[in-house]
Amino acid sequence: MTIRTLLACSALLLSACSQTPAPAPEPAETSAPRNIIFMIGDGMGANYLTAYRYFLAEGKQQQIKPTIYDELWTGISSTWPDDQTLVTDSAASATALATGIKTFNGAISVDQQHLPIGTLMQQAKRQGKANGIVASSQVNHATPAAFLAHNKSRRNMDAIADQFFDIRIEGQLVPDVMLGGGLTHFIRDDRNLVAEFQAEGYQYADSWQQLAQLSQAPALALLADGGLPSVLNQEMEAPLQVMTEKALELLSNHPQGFVLMVEGSQIDWCGHANDIACAMAEMHDFARAIQSAKAFVDANPDTLLIITADHETGGLALAADGIYEWRADLIYGVQYTVREITQRMMALEPAELADQWRHWTGLTLDDNQLADVLAVHQQQPELYALLNGYINQATRTGWTTSGHTAADVPVMAYGAGAEQFTGFMDNIDIAKRIMGFIQQSAN
Amino acid sequence: MTIRTLLACSALLLSACSQTPAPAPEPAETSAPRNIIFMIGDGMGANYLTAYRYFLAEGKQQQIKPTIYDELWTGISSTWPDDQTLVTDSAASATALATGIKTFNGAISVDQQHLPIGTLMQQAKRQGKANGIVASSQVNHATPAAFLAHNKSRRNMDAIADQFFDIRIEGQLVPDVMLGGGLTHFIRDDRNLVAEFQAEGYQYADSWQQLAQLSQAPALALLADGGLPSVLNQEMEAPLQVMTEKALELLSNHPQGFVLMVEGSQIDWCGHANDIACAMAEMHDFARAIQSAKAFVDANPDTLLIITADHETGGLALAADGIYEWRADLIYGVQYTVREITQRMMALEPAELADQWRHWTGLTLDDNQLADVLAVHQQQPELYALLNGYINQATRTGWTTSGHTAADVPVMAYGAGAEQFTGFMDNIDIAKRIMGFIQQSAN
Repeated sequence: MTIRTLLACSALLLSACSQTPAPAPEPAETSAPRNIIFMIGDGMGANYLTAYRYFLAEGKQQQIKPTIYDELWTGISSTWPDDQTLVTDSAASATALATGIKTFNGAISVDQQHLPIGTLMQQAKRQGKANGIVASSQVNHATPAAFLAHNKSRRNMDAIADQFFDIRIEGQLVPDVMLGGGLTHFIRDDRNLVAEFQAEGYQYADSWQQLAQLSQAPALALLADGGLPSVLNQEMEAPLQVMTEKALELLSNHPQGFVLMVEGSQIDWCGHANDIACAMAEMHDFARAIQSAKAFVDANPDTLLIITADHETGGLALAADGIYEWRADLIYGVQYTVREITQRMMALEPAELADQWRHWTGLTLDDNQLADVLAVHQQQPELYALLNGYINQATRTGWTTSGHTAADVPVMAYGAGAEQFTGFMDNIDIAKRIMGFIQQSAN
Repeated sequence: MTIRTLLACSALLLSACSQTPAPAPEPAETSAPRNIIFMIGDGMGANYLTAYRYFLAEGKQQQIKPTIYDELWTGISSTWPDDQTLVTDSAASATALATGIKTFNGAISVDQQHLPIGTLMQQAKRQGKANGIVASSQVNHATPAAFLAHNKSRRNMDAIADQFFDIRIEGQLVPDVMLGGGLTHFIRDDRNLVAEFQAEGYQYADSWQQLAQLSQAPALALLADGGLPSVLNQEMEAPLQVMTEKALELLSNHPQGFVLMVEGSQIDWCGHANDIACAMAEMHDFARAIQSAKAFVDANPDTLLIITADHETGGLALAADGIYEWRADLIYGVQYTVREITQRMMALEPAELADQWRHWTGLTLDDNQLADVLAVHQQQPELYALLNGYINQATRTGWTTSGHTAADVPVMAYGAGAEQFTGFMDNIDIAKRIMGFIQQSAN
């Protein structure tokens, strides 16, 4: 598909290009929320929520209490894509969540014929609403991309970034606020999208200091070349929360309301790495972002907060190898992602390994483990596998895959219209209900 | 603890012996259900429900539709026991579900001091209700035991069976209907509990033919020496459904209503065996038992149907080893449990192995696999591990443990009072709400 085709499509009703889902019927008494905050924990299967509860309690039963995820939990969603695998990738599921239509793995809001499918942010723009996206990955990564772009492959990230600027709805750009990583896709040899956005009146930030100074929409912040640093490896405590609060500040005064999509992108990356401490740090940042969103709903009751995941990553289980315990308490000792620890270990002298491992993880290498580590000290994949295995073994954390699974995912809802997201549903039902609200709020 | 102490306790209010939970406060407008059907899928974590949905669809996305589990899904429950492991066993969780109080792993409705904790069936009997238990394990196995007995160890199964008869509430036996396995614990050298129950007026059955002829409560059916045969290995299609329907028939005319606990006991056993075809067969029988219970609620709207699990078993995940698919379609070819197939393979001549494996599983052994099978042909554990691995590998089914995990479990509710079981809760909340209903229905 060419940009020309896309623009022709987007100049019309997108339904002229491809199928558009009918809004789900809804009870007449529901008044449509003016603002919609749609938060997606990438890879966040139900066991991540359970793990986070016990992680927060430091593994002590006396300290267990419901987390913000627990408080808001209302339903559960299936996630299968439009093929026979049952296991979705982030692109197909983001398409389902952004359009109400299932597609094939890898697709960014196009159907099996590679035709674009209208997204709920395009619909919102048509209704005069503002749109925002926040991600801890690149802003043009699969999940946010599906709300704003159309491509047969999530890998075409430059083309997707182009569409963030090029696609117009009734002459208007679709995203009003974009906060996240991905600078290398926006300033390239062939095109400088940052300059183009600035020429259209967008404020721009490429540092956290500048982010704080953004004063109004439209605005773009590209805070890293690729994805943001893993929360566990950096000083800043809650980058997703900071971006979420800024996006809400910038969008909150829009006269017709707004749709904001916030992705906790790297929960999934930690899941792919089978790295439990990494995952808990990302879950904590996502939880804080949810706290901020919930506070916004409390102050602005005509807002719906809806939270889900696109799929589960890793086949995470809170026990392994026949042992009846999960040692959430030990996760606190792990100070960096295993990828980071592996890099640091490779830079050490052999004599330093044991002490530094203890320092960085709180765990002790026994003689056999130390011998194994020494044997692969300079081999990155083998060392990574060993070290990650030690942490999973100590914490009794189980994983079945480096990829995704077909698990259902949690659905949490709060505020105006939340009652529509209870019980079991499919991922396209979530989009259809949101699109129903957007449609209704225009009437 | 001696039987004497127990009887002294049970002759009084049980709260005199140990703590009894206060019923949870509830909205005044809820009218308490007269009958309560409490169904427990042992080991049935959320991924079992997802797996069952795709199993029913034969893995074909065109055939996916909500199952009865999906239709009834209302909430989610945590399951941690009263220790620091976070991972419960069936005894501690059954105690939580039967009494509203957490205890240590292995305990049957006793607290940390080994003092008995009053159960909701004892409370129901005090209110004049009838009680029934149905299980595909022994009727005195951990889960049903916690509703009727008190012991510091689930392993004392003879003592537990004794208490089914010996504990009296205001002079009355507590269970009115008991259907399941466990004959060897009821007819023993030292005691014949069957004769004792019969002397108290209980009808008795020890075959499915006799079960069909049971005409009124009180009644006891012991249909196997131990647990019932695995559903996958026997001709009878839905033994749990048959027992559930019989129990409902026997209990339905009680003037004060009833409490019926139905356990899908062997979902857990399949999970411990990491045997996916076994698990799906048990899930199917449990689903059919739920269908029957739901039909009863439709005909008797003053009934609450509440369904949950005591914990997750196996760390089941619907994808493994980095591959993005789950092959639910292949499960249909597996005709027996892997334990049964292993026994049958051991009885074969080496030359018959490949053909019979194909016949019993629908899968083909490649040359390497056949060589590996031949090498351990007469070694039961090794052969079992190999064969089970082949099925899990082919279907892309992941497991992290032969034991339990700390996963939250699904909660499903239907009928009178179902609205009290929405969102996130802890397992003791389920018991407290049921006990609140029982208390209320007496007022």
